[in-house]
Amino acid sequence: MSAEAKLKELGIELPPPPGSAGLYSPCVRSGNLLFIAGQIPQRDGKPVAIGKCGAGISVEQGAELAALCTLNALAIVRNHLGTLDRVVQAVRVGGFVASAPGFVQHPQVINGASKLLLDVFGDRGKHARAAVGMAELPAGVPVEVEFLFEVA
Amino acid sequence: MSAEAKLKELGIELPPPPGSAGLYSPCVRSGNLLFIAGQIPQRDGKPVAIGKCGAGISVEQGAELAALCTLNALAIVRNHLGTLDRVVQAVRVGGFVASAPGFVQHPQVINGASKLLLDVFGDRGKHARAAVGMAELPAGVPVEVEFLFEVA
Amino acid sequence: MSAEAKLKELGIELPPPPGSAGLYSPCVRSGNLLFIAGQIPQRDGKPVAIGKCGAGISVEQGAELAALCTLNALAIVRNHLGTLDRVVQAVRVGGFVASAPGFVQHPQVINGASKLLLDVFGDRGKHARAAVGMAELPAGVPVEVEFLFEVA
Repeated sequence: MSAEAKLKELGIELPPPPGSAGLYSPCVRSGNLLFIAGQIPQRDGKPVAIGKCGAGISVEQGAELAALCTLNALAIVRNHLGTLDRVVQAVRVGGFVASAPGFVQHPQVINGASKLLLDVFGDRGKHARAAVGMAELPAGVPVEVEFLFEVA
Repeated sequence: MSAEAKLKELGIELPPPPGSAGLYSPCVRSGNLLFIAGQIPQRDGKPVAIGKCGAGISVEQGAELAALCTLNALAIVRNHLGTLDRVVQAVRVGGFVASAPGFVQHPQVINGASKLLLDVFGDRGKHARAAVGMAELPAGVPVEVEFLFEVA
Repeated sequence: MSAEAKLKELGIELPPPPGSAGLYSPCVRSGNLLFIAGQIPQRDGKPVAIGKCGAGISVEQGAELAALCTLNALAIVRNHLGTLDRVVQAVRVGGFVASAPGFVQHPQVINGASKLLLDVFGDRGKHARAAVGMAELPAGVPVEVEFLFEVA
């Protein structure tokens, strides 16, 4: 099934593609690689949560926020390529989790991003990943996720 | 000398390739680039050390743990390609060091990974690198390392 | 205008290309991708600032330090390629900001790197980016920046 058809089947509507929080581009293509800038859990340009995992933000909330980062990334991909169906493979996910002292469940948080990629793209959603714990993140958000896709 | 021959000469046996700690793949190939997921110092699926560099974990221990991350990565590479001899070049290493306040010897820790790549691959082991200090890492490990290889 | 001509017009002289702080290479090329190792704000092999953003280092100082990281990266690029005019596109910037508790203006700090790329390369300087807050950085510097360029 195509990614766009799958998205419809899942009842997911992508948000408008978010702009940048600085002097960078939402995505840049080199050859068949499409690099997506680090996405934060924002809606209409505003962070939907502030805080750290392990201090006010639960693993489940963190995973939902990672999924929202992914929706924002997919909106950028579709805006750039015209359709998600030109994604050949999700290649790499970089997951950054703002972590209170002792919070070590970064994989469970970033699974929120990974699961959405697998749900939408199936085997083409399989990706390598690094998930790590940060001291702080931009604007005080609990999660930031960056993405690398192979595209046609 | 081939990487496999060099490994034998060094008396190194690779562990079984570790699985994933989440909904991602141990490695993903795009073109000639092979992205290896962030590896932690685990043996038989269990972390071999918990703690932070600068608080219970020394630079020397950290470097040994980074080398173990690298062995796990090489096991994944061999499992994927059949042989390490299809590695054309180590390209990039991302080194994440869980850091107690004031610990700033991240390069010395990640040298444990870099040295092993150079020992095994010679000039083909030369790589660019970023080494940084994290608030926390998955499962409480002191070191996580991700890898990018060019492969044939 | 060519990047080298632009650099001259801006009155910028690149420093000597910095060496490595460990067992890695300043840059590695794979295909048309040139990976630059994480650069710290150093001059003549010595860090020009120690501290964290939000505790002794202001946003403005952080941005200047990120620009110095970028000058060091450009020196490495020119040393490798002979001229900056073989840069086809800045592709990705990874910005690491040593952050005191509560410091969340990482984008503004890393803008110091991004602005210089745009100033020197124009449209070819546009890049994707991740900017995040670290617990500590090598040698105690406030900023580290890594770069990926597409080159000819």
